[in-house]
This record gives sequence, C-alpha cells and structure tokens, in this order.
Amino acid sequence: MLESTVAAIRPLDEAAMAAARELQGRLTKPAGSLGALEPLSVHLAGLAGTCPPPLPDQAAVAIFAGDHGVHAQGVSPWPQEVTAQMIGNFLAGGAVVNAFARQAGASVTVVDVGVATPLAATPPAAAARTADPADLAALPADPADPTGLSADPAGFSADPAAGPVARPADIVATPADPDGPRLVVANVRLGTRDMTVTAALTRDEARAAVETGIRIAAELVDAGAGILLTGDMGIGNTTPAAALVAAFTGVDAAAATGRGTGVDDGTYARKVEVVRAALERHAPDPADPLGVLAAVGGLEHAALAGLILGAAARRVPVLLDGVIAVSAALAAAAFAPDAVGAMVAGHRSAEPGATAALRHLGLDPLIDLGLRLGEGTGALLALPVVTGAVRVLHEVATFDSAGVAEK
Amino acid sequence: MLESTVAAIRPLDEAAMAAARELQGRLTKPAGSLGALEPLSVHLAGLAGTCPPPLPDQAAVAIFAGDHGVHAQGVSPWPQEVTAQMIGNFLAGGAVVNAFARQAGASVTVVDVGVATPLAATPPAAAARTADPADLAALPADPADPTGLSADPAGFSADPAAGPVARPADIVATPADPDGPRLVVANVRLGTRDMTVTAALTRDEARAAVETGIRIAAELVDAGAGILLTGDMGIGNTTPAAALVAAFTGVDAAAATGRGTGVDDGTYARKVEVVRAALERHAPDPADPLGVLAAVGGLEHAALAGLILGAAARRVPVLLDGVIAVSAALAAAAFAPDAVGAMVAGHRSAEPGATAALRHLGLDPLIDLGLRLGEGTGALLALPVVTGAVRVLHEVATFDSAGVAEK
Repeated sequence: MLESTVAAIRPLDEAAMAAARELQGRLTKPAGSLGALEPLSVHLAGLAGTCPPPLPDQAAVAIFAGDHGVHAQGVSPWPQEVTAQMIGNFLAGGAVVNAFARQAGASVTVVDVGVATPLAATPPAAAARTADPADLAALPADPADPTGLSADPAGFSADPAAGPVARPADIVATPADPDGPRLVVANVRLGTRDMTVTAALTRDEARAAVETGIRIAAELVDAGAGILLTGDMGIGNTTPAAALVAAFTGVDAAAATGRGTGVDDGTYARKVEVVRAALERHAPDPADPLGVLAAVGGLEHAALAGLILGAAARRVPVLLDGVIAVSAALAAAAFAPDAVGAMVAGHRSAEPGATAALRHLGLDPLIDLGLRLGEGTGALLALPVVTGAVRVLHEVATFDSAGVAEK
Repeated sequence: MLESTVAAIRPLDEAAMAAARELQGRLTKPAGSLGALEPLSVHLAGLAGTCPPPLPDQAAVAIFAGDHGVHAQGVSPWPQEVTAQMIGNFLAGGAVVNAFARQAGASVTVVDVGVATPLAATPPAAAARTADPADLAALPADPADPTGLSADPAGFSADPAAGPVARPADIVATPADPDGPRLVVANVRLGTRDMTVTAALTRDEARAAVETGIRIAAELVDAGAGILLTGDMGIGNTTPAAALVAAFTGVDAAAATGRGTGVDDGTYARKVEVVRAALERHAPDPADPLGVLAAVGGLEHAALAGLILGAAARRVPVLLDGVIAVSAALAAAAFAPDAVGAMVAGHRSAEPGATAALRHLGLDPLIDLGLRLGEGTGALLALPVVTGAVRVLHEVATFDSAGVAEK
C-alpha cells in the first residue's frame, strides 16, 4: 500500500495554476492585495488540477495518538497515562481541538495507533460510536505484543451515569458538531521502544503505522472530506519529533529540540542529550524514511506521514499542525518529494524544530501565534484562511462583471 | 454625543481578567500552550467584565466609504469613481469582504460617509434594502455642500433585469448570508478637501463623521452584534492614513507612507511629499484628535474612530483591519486612552504605517499575511482566532472534570 500510494503522487498541475493566476488578476481587488492568500489559491488549484479548486468545506481532523519508550528517560513532566486520558477528553468533546473543530465545522477522528496504557475508563458519551469491527479486523497485529486495547474496545462504556468528562451544557449547546468525535483503534504496539536503547520500532511496525495513516486518509476522503488536518497526542512526542527533524534536515539536536509542553532547564538539557544520543546510536539515513521512522520516530509520527501521503495521492490538501506534523511531513517528503504539493503549513509552532522543518520543506505557515499545544489546534485556526483563499476564486466578482474601473 | 461616549469608556475589569487567568490554568492543556490566544481571552474577559466573556458569534463589519480631495495630487492610479463602484460591488455581494463575511457569518453594513461621485447606477439586488429613511433624517447636513446622495437614495434601483454584478450562482449558493449587505447613506460631504491646500474637513464635519461612527456602533450592538469589525473603502485613503499615523505617532512621513494599492516609484515619492506638505501646513496637535482628523483625515477615518469609541463605550470588542483602521484607532485612543482596551488588531497590513500605529497602540496583530486590500478583509480572517480564544473559556474541560492528570 505504501509503494502504490507513493507512486500515485504527482506534481501540481501547471495549467490549473496558470488559470488561477489569471483569474486572480481579474477579480475586483488590486493585484497582489490578498498577500499570501493569492499564491495559496494558485497552489490549491494546482493540487486539484482545476480552477477554481473545490471549496474545502468538509474538513476532517485526524488525531493520531501514541506513546513513547523514551518517556522513561524523563523527557516530559507529564505521566504517560495522560495520552490515554486525553483520548477520553477528545471523545467527550472537552479538549481544545474539539472546541476549535466545532467552530470550524470539522469532524474529529481519533486514531489509537500506539497508546501504551488502557484507554480511559471514564466513558465519554461519544464512545458509544467507537471502533467499527471492520477497523479491528484490519488491525496490523503484532504477535509479540498483542494489544489488549485492539481486542477489547468494550473497555469503553456508553453509560451516561458514569458522568460527563466535559461541562455538558457547553457541549450540548454546540450545534456545529452533530456527529461527534470518532475513535479508530489501530494500535500497532503499546508505545514505541526507548530509542536511546534500541530502535523505536521495527521497519514492519513503522510501515504498519504509515499504512494506517494512508488508510485513514482514504477513508476520510471517501467520506467526503475536502481537506485533512493533522492532529496528534502523545506524551513525550516532541522528543522523537526533534530527532526526526534533526535526521531529515541535518540541523543539530539542540536546534531541533524545544521545550514541548514547557519543560524546565534540566529536563530540556536531558532532552537534547537524549535526541543526540539516539541520532548517534542509529545514524539514520534521511534517504530511507522508513528506517528513520523506525529508528527514532513515533507511531503517531509514522501514521501522520502516511496521512499526508494518502492525501497527496488523492490530491486533497493536508493542513499541517505543529512540530509533530511537520516532522512527519519531512518523512512524507522523503518518501515522495511531490507530496509537499499537498501540504499547507497551518501555523508556526513555538518549537524550534518546527521552523527548521518548515524551512526544509519550503513552507510558510499561515498563523504564528506562539501555539504549542498540538492536537490539530493550530491547523484548525488556519483552516478559515485556506477556505477563504479558495472562496475568493469562487465568489468574488471580476472588474468586468462588477462594472468597476481598473487603474 | 462624542463627549458622552468618551466619558463612558472605562478601563478593563481586573477581577474578570484574574478569573480568566485562573480558568486558563485549569483547562486541559499545558499552561501557555495556546500562545497569544490566552492573553487575548483574558483581555476580552476584562472588556466584558465577566468570565467567560460572551462568545462573539454575531459579528458585524461596518465599511465606511469616503473620497479624498488629495486624490487630485495624483496619489493613486485608480479613478475616484471606483469608491462608488465598489459600494455597488459590496451591496451586490461581489467583493472579497463579502466572500469572507459569508464564510464567517458576519453581517455587512456599508456606510457612505463621504463618497464624492454618484453611487453606482448598476443595481445590486441587495440595494432593494437601501438606507432606512430614519437614517436620512438623522443625516448631519452640510448646508454649504448639500449632498445629492443623501437626498436621493432612489438613485438605486432594485430592478433585477439590470443584471447581476457578481456571479449569481455563487452568491445564491451561500446560505451564511441570509440578510445581505445593508447600505446606510450618511454622507457628511462629497469627499474631503485637498489637505495640501486647506484643511480636509471643518471641525464640525469631522465631528459629524465621528458621531456617525458612534451611531453605527450603537445600532449594530443594539441589533445584537457581539463584535464589530472595521472596514473601509476610499480611493486615495492610504494618504490621509499615513498623515494621521505621522501626526499621532511622530514618525516621519516616509516611514508612515506605503504603496497602498500598489503605486509606482514616482507616485510613491509624490505621496510621501504630499503627506509631508500637509503635515507642515497644518502642524496638527496629537492632543487634539478632532483637529488632526479635520486637518489631514478622511471622513471614513473619522467615522472609524467613532465606531471604535462607540464599541469601547458599549464594552464590545472591535476587530481592527488594516492601515485605515489603525490610523483611526490612533485618533480613538487620543480621544479616550482606555478605548485601546476594546481594540483587537486583526492583522498586520503590508503598509508600513500600520506597523507604526500598532506599535504606538501596543497591539500585536493576530494575522500577518501581507494583505493590503482593506474593506475589512484582514479583520474577517482574524475573527475565528478571536472567537476561538473565547470559545476555549466556554467549552474546554478542566483537568478535574476530564479526569486528566497534571504534570
């Protein structure tokens, strides 16, 4: 599936881009006055292969969740259980990503691609619609490490008596979210191995996670999504992200590593050393993206790379969130350089690795507000900019049609 | 009306701000991880005087339109008639501001506060709902310069046979805009005088325009608007904006002046000289905002200052667009320093004067995408960020309620 997806990724369509440039010049506004939105609209026309490109009005956030063996090295002040607890929060609609998704009218799909601890017992109402049995049947099983999670989605209960996770009045009062978040259990293994000791994943595990991302992209596009947004959850996942950025861009471990959720000086220094040690141990080859993901990646990073490849193969734009997303985007670009054509950088994360990755990919982010939350929140804030850029091509009058004089 | 409005403007409410800060710390996200959205939510709580502040889900764009005597100095390559023609485009829903307003679910009110030429004869369908007679009765009349426009809104025809201004299928297909743009004719005079020759306005004219803005703010808030967005249209209006920025901030004419819709080197040099000449002629006193507006302002700039004051008096946030808006905001801040508490900077215009004004006001813009269109487009792109910042306080679960461990 990975090879056929990569083979399907093609360059942007020059004719559609030329048509979009020409149309921009006839719309009732001074040429260039929409700044970055004009080249963005041209880019999306090239991706769609038509001008105007379709309005991306069905947006889907895919939040890939995983845990990290390197957490044992003390790279995060948060307990690993928070990954699973936050999945419960996502499914209950109580996280920031949910609030922003409701506002943007975007669907939320949470994919357990590698969570280590049991998913929260507290039953979000939305968990009544948990994994489809078909998803479970398609699970890439790890015989050496069977996941209780995959086998037992009944760990969720839909009993409303167990109490709400989020403040119910607020959630109920939000009509933009009729369908609620969805959980897909596709757990490749119960978290990665500690990359300072051994490879985080086998190549087969990394491939399974990438292919899970490809499959999720296909499912969301088949269900009508016109744009995919990357989301992530995984305590400790800025550490493998920094390692991926360093491996793919060649920047130093210190330049790729940030403070994640807000670590103190001692933890930050340890984090840099952990990234440096992992890179020295594995010496990952940036021309072998599966090898890099296996050596120093995370399951959610690998799955996000797959989501991006899947979107690119379907010529649907993928709006990147923060440092986890852009580190995964580096892997996607290493698999298929033309995949960059499907990428739109949603925002500039406060993590320094994000800026290094964006520079390497040649992407300018749309929003720069110091966010460092992940989940897909930065991508969701940028979504109206993307939709607006396309909407201009659909709805704005030309000088001719509006009877407005030109200069 | 101006004096009572200024007197009603009060500082932010410290208790509500403290409550918002405390709530931010309990929500299920790392502290500070929402970057600029966190202080923004605190600020809006302080403005509303309550935590959480109301969700600004009814947004209203007010586009003030005017012409400029200084246009005779060759500061713009566009003919003056384009101001009136673009009003036709706004009312037909064909401009970029309309596309963005439909996307954001915002209403559009176009206010002719000083257009020089007849409003477009081509009848946008929306012009069936033109100025309410009550608006006309309230017009601040200039006996020396009676406005044909004010007296004759019947210059508009609602005859659909005259043909659409914008591509109709697109407009009809947009359900977010059930009410359509509205026109208010409140023409103070048929454009300003040439500020290089004489004061652009009398003090009474400047006051009439400011009070028109105050009145529009009150009407929009009374109609339910939870946030006002500034819009503007006026060929040549970046020249008085530059003069206002220089007068209020003290920066040099060259530092305050930009290329507007995209003027060539010769026009740019002339524009700087025009701004410099007007400032030397009038030597406006920044402590006398009405005097500054009269000497070197525009009618739309004065009305926008009034809109901001009116919003601040009602404790409703006003989302600023580009350089016209922030130059008007300088005047509003000179009338009432606490009016800055009602301001949110939507975006950083490509015009250098905008950056000088934002620095003087102590505002950080939310979006920075090189826009220089005006109309309210940059404010509309930033609106989801503002709404999102407030929504977090309403909808996101706390660590406690979601059963998520803290670090």
